[in-house]
Amino acid sequence: MADADEPVPPGTKRVIADAVRSALAAHGYADLTTSKVAAECPKSEAFLFYHYDTKDELVAAFLESSTGWIEGELAGVEADSATAELLAVCDRLVPDPDDPEGAGVAIAIMELLSHAPYNDTLREPLRTHQVHVHDTVAGIVREGIAAGEFREVDPDATAAFVIAAAEGSTGSGLALDRPEAVAHVRERLRDYVSSRVVADGARPG
Amino acid sequence: MADADEPVPPGTKRVIADAVRSALAAHGYADLTTSKVAAECPKSEAFLFYHYDTKDELVAAFLESSTGWIEGELAGVEADSATAELLAVCDRLVPDPDDPEGAGVAIAIMELLSHAPYNDTLREPLRTHQVHVHDTVAGIVREGIAAGEFREVDPDATAAFVIAAAEGSTGSGLALDRPEAVAHVRERLRDYVSSRVVADGARPG
Repeated sequence: MADADEPVPPGTKRVIADAVRSALAAHGYADLTTSKVAAECPKSEAFLFYHYDTKDELVAAFLESSTGWIEGELAGVEADSATAELLAVCDRLVPDPDDPEGAGVAIAIMELLSHAPYNDTLREPLRTHQVHVHDTVAGIVREGIAAGEFREVDPDATAAFVIAAAEGSTGSGLALDRPEAVAHVRERLRDYVSSRVVADGARPG
Repeated sequence: MADADEPVPPGTKRVIADAVRSALAAHGYADLTTSKVAAECPKSEAFLFYHYDTKDELVAAFLESSTGWIEGELAGVEADSATAELLAVCDRLVPDPDDPEGAGVAIAIMELLSHAPYNDTLREPLRTHQVHVHDTVAGIVREGIAAGEFREVDPDATAAFVIAAAEGSTGSGLALDRPEAVAHVRERLRDYVSSRVVADGARPG
C-alpha cells in the first residue's frame, strides 16, 4: 500500500514515469495495468504498489513528470530567434509517425484527455500539462512580438491554434495510420507561423 | 444473437445510431455498455442484441450512420460561395462547448480514435468517417479554386490542416473545460481561411 507520508525520491519517480510512458505507448490507457508498467520497469510490481495505489496514480505521476518535456525537447534546438524557436516547437508538437514510442504516447495522451471529464485523478495533471504547453508557446510568441520579429498577434489565441492544429493530427492522422495527413499538418503549420505570425520582412529561421 | 444474414432496416439503424450517440455523449466509450445504449433507446436491450453482438458493433453502426453528418450540418447553411461554405464547415468542425451532447460526442470520437490502433472493429468505420470529412473539405477547397475564390493552395494539405486544428480543440479545450481555447481556435481558423485560403480581393462570406 502506498505511503502518502513518504515522498517518492526524484530518481525513483523518473524511473517509474519512464516505465509508465513506455507501457502507455505500447498498450494505450484502457489496457494499461500495473503489471504492464512493471514489465517496462527495473522495479517490481510490489515496489510500484508501495509508492502508488492505482494505475491512475501511476499515470498522474507520469503526467506530472512530463510537464517539462517541451523544455527538454527545446534544449537541443539551436534557436537563435523566436521564429526558429516557434518553428522548432511546432515540429516537436506534431507527433512523428516514424517514431513508434512518440506516436504511441501522443495517442495515449489523446485517450487520457478523453477521460478527463470523467476522471478526477487524471484531470488536474492533464490540465497542468496542457496549460504548461500553452504558456510555453504563448511565451515564445510574446518574446517574438517584443523582439519585433512577430506581428502584433494575440499570443494566447495563436498558442491555442498552433497547439490544436499540432495535436489534432494525432487523431485524424496518427491513430488512423494516415501519415500523409500528419505531414500535411506539419507543413501547413510551418507555413502558418511563417506567414501569419512572423512579421513581413523577418526571415523564418 | 445477431443474425448476419438479416440486414438491419434503415429506420431501426437510425434509431439505434441515435441511441449510441446519446450514450457515448453521456458516458464516453470506456464506460459504454449495451444497457446504457438501451436506456437511450425506445427498443429493448434484447432487441439491440438481436441485431448487434457487441458494444463495438453498436459503435461501428453509429460511426457508419454518421458519415453523412457534415452534409446534414451544411444542408441548413446558406452558402452561396465556397468561402461561406468553408467557413461554415470550420464552425461546425470546432465543437461548441455550450452544446453538451455535441461536446460529449466530440470527446467520445477522440476516445474512439485513440482505440483505432488496437481495435479492428472500430478502425475501418473511423477511417471511413475521417476520410469522408477530409474529402468533403478538400472538395470545397477545389471548388473555391476552380471558381477563382481561393488561392492555388493544395486542397488535401489545406483540408488536413483545417480538420486537425478544429478537432485538436477537443482535447486541449473541450475535454479540459477550457472554453476560451476552443473560442480561440474557432476565431483563428476563420482568420486562417480568410487570409491563407481565400484569394486576395475575394470577400469572406
